[in-house]
Amino acid sequence: MEELKQEIVLTGDRPTGRLHIGHYVGSIKQRLRLQDEYAVNYLMIADLQALTDNAYDVGKVRESVIEVLYDYLSCGIDPEKTAIFIQSLIPELTEFTILYMNFVTLARLLRNPTVKNEMQLREFDNAVPIGFLNYPVSQAADITAFNATLVPVGDDQLPMLEQTNEIVRHINFHFNTDVLKECKPILSKITRLPGTDGNAKMSKSLNNCIYLSDDAETVSKKIRGMYTDPNHLRVEDPGKVEGNPVFTYLDAFDPDKTELEEWKAHYRRGGLGDVKVKRRLEKVLQAELEPIRERRAQFEGKPDRAIEMLIESSKKVRKVAQENLLKLKTVLGINYEVDIPPIYTERL
Amino acid sequence: MEELKQEIVLTGDRPTGRLHIGHYVGSIKQRLRLQDEYAVNYLMIADLQALTDNAYDVGKVRESVIEVLYDYLSCGIDPEKTAIFIQSLIPELTEFTILYMNFVTLARLLRNPTVKNEMQLREFDNAVPIGFLNYPVSQAADITAFNATLVPVGDDQLPMLEQTNEIVRHINFHFNTDVLKECKPILSKITRLPGTDGNAKMSKSLNNCIYLSDDAETVSKKIRGMYTDPNHLRVEDPGKVEGNPVFTYLDAFDPDKTELEEWKAHYRRGGLGDVKVKRRLEKVLQAELEPIRERRAQFEGKPDRAIEMLIESSKKVRKVAQENLLKLKTVLGINYEVDIPPIYTERL
Repeated sequence: MEELKQEIVLTGDRPTGRLHIGHYVGSIKQRLRLQDEYAVNYLMIADLQALTDNAYDVGKVRESVIEVLYDYLSCGIDPEKTAIFIQSLIPELTEFTILYMNFVTLARLLRNPTVKNEMQLREFDNAVPIGFLNYPVSQAADITAFNATLVPVGDDQLPMLEQTNEIVRHINFHFNTDVLKECKPILSKITRLPGTDGNAKMSKSLNNCIYLSDDAETVSKKIRGMYTDPNHLRVEDPGKVEGNPVFTYLDAFDPDKTELEEWKAHYRRGGLGDVKVKRRLEKVLQAELEPIRERRAQFEGKPDRAIEMLIESSKKVRKVAQENLLKLKTVLGINYEVDIPPIYTERL
Repeated sequence: MEELKQEIVLTGDRPTGRLHIGHYVGSIKQRLRLQDEYAVNYLMIADLQALTDNAYDVGKVRESVIEVLYDYLSCGIDPEKTAIFIQSLIPELTEFTILYMNFVTLARLLRNPTVKNEMQLREFDNAVPIGFLNYPVSQAADITAFNATLVPVGDDQLPMLEQTNEIVRHINFHFNTDVLKECKPILSKITRLPGTDGNAKMSKSLNNCIYLSDDAETVSKKIRGMYTDPNHLRVEDPGKVEGNPVFTYLDAFDPDKTELEEWKAHYRRGGLGDVKVKRRLEKVLQAELEPIRERRAQFEGKPDRAIEMLIESSKKVRKVAQENLLKLKTVLGINYEVDIPPIYTERL
């Protein structure tokens, strides 16, 4: 057995719905590799972070917690290798956050490119909930509470890690300590899958997702209904591969890249029908999803056992955050239980 | 024995130095009355709040925690009647804060008159630490975590209670609950004592405070050096009572108001010397401070016993915050331990 690398990896998802094949390609497959490569892996179901822009839709967040857990386990995330936990079950994370908030200015948060972009997307402007604006600080808490050294992210999330490391360096410098650890990104060329309707993004509201929890019949139906090249009317017409989500999915899932390239050429010059290409995609995708469904069948319908397992796992994880919080509090001089403060000595 | 009123009173101080006679007149004397009038009294040593603008001076905060406790006990705050606790020993307060932050916008905080004013005083502008900007939310957490219904404040702090009640109503309305309680101010004509140098404010950096922990000799010296009316050069000159801190102090402490008015008239028309007035103040003030000193002598020099008592008391208080947090989390649907979330049911 190969030696595991001694790094601490932390990833997470906001539980705002079931995971789809876009999540699978974009992050879950990477996590499956990471859990076999690194000694310590944390996977956070970030319910508190989900609430920062879903405060009025807590039902969705609440119900997605177990759904997301099921998705993880079905895909082969192994609780023996990856510690899965619920963010809100680690109250120390809120303590870290509150402490860090004293070292980050409003201007700095408003300047964070990721926050800026996300705020624009949501048209928040000054009506941004302070919890949302603050989420880089909250992420810094998540990462440092576990001394995570590696965080898989897309390019667009790099400013979040910069913000984290800024806090780390700032506190370490001012308190002359190395209690906090800097983290590095694991940058991945994130394959972002388009929706089945050709829309650039999979989104529940657009009803254009293939979920990991879809049964075979549903997947089949969704593939058959997929958008292709709208100008590819007859089989003999030349078709476009670029922007054709059926081919984008094949790029992501088809193991036989050589044959796939031949099919693409064929499609481009005409003579290859959409039905045939979709059948190829269905074969490939069902093959990928079938073992996921089989694993799911083993525990589906037992949400109480699932939440129990999550709570157990969160409790173990919590001990790490507790230890690290005490270390930080000792550095800051507010760990009164182990470290009695002197009486204020300056007498004028 | 008179029946105690069934309200929950919460007050607190930021531990950023020893308390002086301004604190005594402004808030401690009121607390002494309240603890005999109301059934439940909380007194918070707000170390986390102190850190929001003292993040680089944690030593001061840390050391002041015990000093402030000593000041309370010396003045007669009775731990049997008033639950004294350290804010940072109640981690649930940070959880409340983080949850509330999703319901308060940046615009709302920037519009809070108290915050605005405090930010101007500190010339923060956009460089305001996000923790400082957020302190009304943190106060809402402190108040509601204990279901406090009465909060003694000065006029200038009223916007803070409005912000708290806004959060309370907002959450209660949206989640169709009454889990959070609104609070009312106990408005007091706050006697704000000037410094011994005539400056409008007592401030450690101006070295113009008389501390509750000053010994008799120090108090005597400080009174003798007090600023009076600079134009009252000879005893026979007419003197000014307004803006003369010796008389302001006498107003606050002298029990014999009739004689004091006669002295004021005498001073105004001339013939009453500063030395004599200062002697009167010294007599009055030492009489007030002497029992405080006597009480202090009983426990001074035992900071470990003091912190032990504070930790014990904080632990008791924490149970209340824990219960109330669980209630709120249940309403928000994120109390997974007692309330298993259903599996996400929407299947497209």
